[in-house]
Amino acid sequence: ARQSELCGESREITITPDCVCTQMLESSNLVTFNGLANSSSYDTFLLDEERGRLLVGAEDHIFSFDLVNINRDHKQKECTNFIRVLQPYNQTHLYICGTGAFHPICAFLEMGKRAEDNIFRLASHFENGRGKSPYDPKMLSASLLIEKFTFASGTGHLFLTIFFSLADGELYSGTSADFMGRDFAIFRTLGDHHPIRTEQHDSRWLNDPRFIGVNLIPESDNPEDDKIFLFFKENAMDGEHTGKATIARIGQLCKNDMGGHRSLVNKWTTFLKARLMCSVPGVNGIDTHFDELQDVFLMSSKDPKNPVIYAVFTTSSNIFKGSAVCMYNMADIRRVFLGPYAHRDGPNYQWVPFQGRVPYPRPGTCPSKTFGGFDSTKDLPDDVITFARGHPAMYNPVHPIGGRPIMVRTDVDYQFSQLVVDRVEAEDGQYDVMFIGTDMGTVLKVVTIPRESWHDLEEVVLEEMTVFREPTPITAMELSTKQKIPNWTTHRNIKFLRPPSFFDSHSNSCTLA
Amino acid sequence: ARQSELCGESREITITPDCVCTQMLESSNLVTFNGLANSSSYDTFLLDEERGRLLVGAEDHIFSFDLVNINRDHKQKECTNFIRVLQPYNQTHLYICGTGAFHPICAFLEMGKRAEDNIFRLASHFENGRGKSPYDPKMLSASLLIEKFTFASGTGHLFLTIFFSLADGELYSGTSADFMGRDFAIFRTLGDHHPIRTEQHDSRWLNDPRFIGVNLIPESDNPEDDKIFLFFKENAMDGEHTGKATIARIGQLCKNDMGGHRSLVNKWTTFLKARLMCSVPGVNGIDTHFDELQDVFLMSSKDPKNPVIYAVFTTSSNIFKGSAVCMYNMADIRRVFLGPYAHRDGPNYQWVPFQGRVPYPRPGTCPSKTFGGFDSTKDLPDDVITFARGHPAMYNPVHPIGGRPIMVRTDVDYQFSQLVVDRVEAEDGQYDVMFIGTDMGTVLKVVTIPRESWHDLEEVVLEEMTVFREPTPITAMELSTKQKIPNWTTHRNIKFLRPPSFFDSHSNSCTLA
Repeated sequence: ARQSELCGESREITITPDCVCTQMLESSNLVTFNGLANSSSYDTFLLDEERGRLLVGAEDHIFSFDLVNINRDHKQKECTNFIRVLQPYNQTHLYICGTGAFHPICAFLEMGKRAEDNIFRLASHFENGRGKSPYDPKMLSASLLIEKFTFASGTGHLFLTIFFSLADGELYSGTSADFMGRDFAIFRTLGDHHPIRTEQHDSRWLNDPRFIGVNLIPESDNPEDDKIFLFFKENAMDGEHTGKATIARIGQLCKNDMGGHRSLVNKWTTFLKARLMCSVPGVNGIDTHFDELQDVFLMSSKDPKNPVIYAVFTTSSNIFKGSAVCMYNMADIRRVFLGPYAHRDGPNYQWVPFQGRVPYPRPGTCPSKTFGGFDSTKDLPDDVITFARGHPAMYNPVHPIGGRPIMVRTDVDYQFSQLVVDRVEAEDGQYDVMFIGTDMGTVLKVVTIPRESWHDLEEVVLEEMTVFREPTPITAMELSTKQKIPNWTTHRNIKFLRPPSFFDSHSNSCTLA
Repeated sequence: ARQSELCGESREITITPDCVCTQMLESSNLVTFNGLANSSSYDTFLLDEERGRLLVGAEDHIFSFDLVNINRDHKQKECTNFIRVLQPYNQTHLYICGTGAFHPICAFLEMGKRAEDNIFRLASHFENGRGKSPYDPKMLSASLLIEKFTFASGTGHLFLTIFFSLADGELYSGTSADFMGRDFAIFRTLGDHHPIRTEQHDSRWLNDPRFIGVNLIPESDNPEDDKIFLFFKENAMDGEHTGKATIARIGQLCKNDMGGHRSLVNKWTTFLKARLMCSVPGVNGIDTHFDELQDVFLMSSKDPKNPVIYAVFTTSSNIFKGSAVCMYNMADIRRVFLGPYAHRDGPNYQWVPFQGRVPYPRPGTCPSKTFGGFDSTKDLPDDVITFARGHPAMYNPVHPIGGRPIMVRTDVDYQFSQLVVDRVEAEDGQYDVMFIGTDMGTVLKVVTIPRESWHDLEEVVLEEMTVFREPTPITAMELSTKQKIPNWTTHRNIKFLRPPSFFDSHSNSCTLA
């Protein structure tokens, strides 16, 4: 009876692929903004719930749309730029960055305090955007925005994704910092401190990374322990995999990392990364891996320290195309970062779990009164810094909840590209409803239902919506928590979808095949 | 016009999947022997072209069928055994082995010299079958027969395949030699010499191997250089692959290997193995591998030293099921065995190409007047023996002709299981016609046509034949070179197919969809 309620009808529905509603969205639910003739690359989103606006960064333009009535008015600003950053800076200003002409620049955009202020004014003073925006707009396409207190947005692409997190007035960005797009790094800029970055030209730290997302997740009730988590994919490290392979990663940094004193000066001393595993166990012990991380969505719970992490993956093969969604919990992630470091004695060695003495304080721990007796990463002993520099990777991977994906799709002509998740209250409990965007311009509305336990989930596809008439990849999706308006975009045009709320109406109900 | 001739019709055919004839074979072409109620496991074939008989080993019975008129008569012998070996021993006798009751035994079967002799008599004296037949009949299913002077047959299964090659009165077998099925080895038994085998309990030599086939291939015009080549799959060696994986192998042995003198006594001193690669290159540099070797067919050419090797592979994944056919040539195989040995300094090291001094004579070389100045492997210096024991694997894999499979099948409900290849003369030249058996009881008739060169082949499926009404895996296929009668079998029953010859009749022609 569960599914029938979710499908908006009262009769019993068996859990089969029949319960899929394939429909072209009606025009009443869909507002299309086809963009300007002289602009493109509508990739960077900022959902400004406070002022009820949706900001879109594009080529040479910033657009501001009214969220309540998107048709009513939209404003635009010219800026001779591919806009790659749109970040709330303070109560009245946004911070924006763009590629310039292969010369990244940033500036402040005044928005006013409230919607009624109706201000949309670009400051005349520009700042250097190196380490904030990439140089090459062609390398970018997707964008990601994380909710308040962890402001982040991103623009991405097959080869490079960039994202930003503005926490306490500091901008975290994973980007390339040179003209050639070879010096990839995770930067922290703005704020009062010297910029901090990852070790340069060390493939153990980052090996041709493509960044997907960044989030601040508190570790304890003490803000000193706050950590920044980064989601990216990169090439396998030398000796990590047979042949060339993509590895999905979760990285961590301490928000209060100030770099080292004698060594790793202005470099992260608390950076660690672990493999994000999303694979289906094989009967013969040979697993099927989904390694091409495409998107990440954090579903916050009552406890801000423990969001559930949803991640969308595809296969690396051009012969076998498939997609999977995996769920991770923070307890498993923290256990991996507290587990053995990956270690090898030299270039011809295998990576093994480090068995020796780990220096104190354990690399990766934030300077705080909670866990350790040191005040700043600049006080870290030399042996800790030396160990941290040589051991950025953990030995164990992070396995998904239940040890397998909650959803796998093969033998279809599309692959998953984006994901937003909405937690809804149904009569018989709480459900996470996934909206999964595909590279063919469709959106799947999927709910997972526990079969026996929460470790054995069953997926039910409620709807399959064709959002774009011509097949075009969905490169960004946002879910407005206030207005329940999922928005998605592609390179070509922007469409805003406004379905009715999910369970109180028959107008969007499931038509059984 | 090429395809039209091959399809047996005169009109032009475009090379598309439409040119597939799916048909249930007519009863006039198909003779079915449904077996005895009290027997099963019709897995071991011997095509005795001399006497015009097809011998089939099964549970407790050996059957002998008349090849010309299979319906005419069949004889049978009882033997309380699962027959796993059926080998021509000399002009009048076959050598047969079976599992016994987990106690392998062998005996001679008198057949007479000519068909007219009409003899079919089992000797009363039994020999120990250890190292010749496995103990457990459940572990076996496929069988393979190689043509005269290299007599080999096999019975196989998911977990273990066994095969035998009787050359100059010696039986080469890859099997398990203990009750528990843990001591896997390649044996040489019979003949005048002490039995020789692979090093025991050394996972570098063999790591849970499943044998597919064995062949004698001359290296030069001097029989002293003759080599036995083995085809098998096994688990990846420690450090060879990330996670558990199956690796397809080609192994080599010298026919005149007599073992070592002080070390490797009664063990092979010339055993080497290399990875058989069958993968599709990816645009991102990440290849899609087919590693589950299923069957091998040697297409002999005018030069007996250089047959073309056809191999059928499937994927190891239970999510992405696919099949591929790869072709290899002996020049590439010999180059790999003359290339660097795989080496590692210890358990935590990676496998690297051995860079040091290789002792003389190079391990893997046969004692012969052609290449070296030594008479027997018992004369090999200690450093050669020590090196051979520690370096059974080559560093480089054998890549297929053209660097990719000649045929790949995905998104179908079957996988390839068996292969025979027939070389036929068409008006415009010579073609290799593949008969590919599947795990669903169908047989594909496929021809590959060069597009630009012999390194760029295009497959054309001429027919898709349903051999078994109920889907049942094809576990053995033989092609009679004299009578052009492909035979195939499954666990349940035996069917003999007698299609008309391939290009001189319209009765089996291609019906265009």
